[in-house]
Amino acid sequence: MDFGKRISIEAVEEGNEFMPKFDDKGLIPVITMEEGSNLVLMHGYLNKEALKLSIETKMAHYWSRSREQLWKKGEISGLKQAIVKILVDDDQDCMIFRVNVAGSGASCHVGYKSCFYRVLEDKENLKFIETEKLFDPDKVYEGEDNPTIL
Amino acid sequence: MDFGKRISIEAVEEGNEFMPKFDDKGLIPVITMEEGSNLVLMHGYLNKEALKLSIETKMAHYWSRSREQLWKKGEISGLKQAIVKILVDDDQDCMIFRVNVAGSGASCHVGYKSCFYRVLEDKENLKFIETEKLFDPDKVYEGEDNPTIL
Repeated sequence: MDFGKRISIEAVEEGNEFMPKFDDKGLIPVITMEEGSNLVLMHGYLNKEALKLSIETKMAHYWSRSREQLWKKGEISGLKQAIVKILVDDDQDCMIFRVNVAGSGASCHVGYKSCFYRVLEDKENLKFIETEKLFDPDKVYEGEDNPTIL
Repeated sequence: MDFGKRISIEAVEEGNEFMPKFDDKGLIPVITMEEGSNLVLMHGYLNKEALKLSIETKMAHYWSRSREQLWKKGEISGLKQAIVKILVDDDQDCMIFRVNVAGSGASCHVGYKSCFYRVLEDKENLKFIETEKLFDPDKVYEGEDNPTIL
């Protein structure tokens, strides 16, 4: 399985052939949404292998930039994401995974349902819009490094 | 106006202070959603200036990677995006703009409402989920270069 060649802007924008564009690091950003609720759960990255595995298995795979490795979502936590639909944008350099999440339905390593659990209240301060964690990350990820980089 | 220093993972993930992380190119990705419908309209990038202007003016500003310049959304097309809310993710390296769009409500330079107007039907083929353009890009962007890069 390989992807289409980007032969013209018209083919990329107006065509029916899938011809994703990977960036200079070989990655393509992906927005993951919960099917049904339209909640944006997370924002991740795909390399060619992660995209192929996601399409073929219909389970979300990503490229972990902090761990620098293929990341089968839910392998440790059990919070797997079953892909319902994959959308692609105009210039085919970004995708959306529409998914159903297993277990508690959470997708964020901090324990919240969505990674976007805070809103900017003014210019400097954040307010939590999710207030309860759906799982305890210290238990679920015991012994694992935190992927957040300062 | 400046942003908070990323002093600890706990402060970044569990705190109330806004401390966004720009990547090695000085950019942070942003997902733009239509307030009310939860439709994802586009995926863009912010540099520090675009983020500051977006926060201060409550009108969406981006960094155009193809044009390599600050991009006040809607300046040419009139399709301005009024920001209702800004959300930030766990490690504060991605944001969501929740917006109301002026005029026809479209956000995609190809003429569709959302940039994500196609779904992957199988491994190779795309199907249009938006079938009618809300404006004629040849008229609206007359004389402008197409931002899509092959």
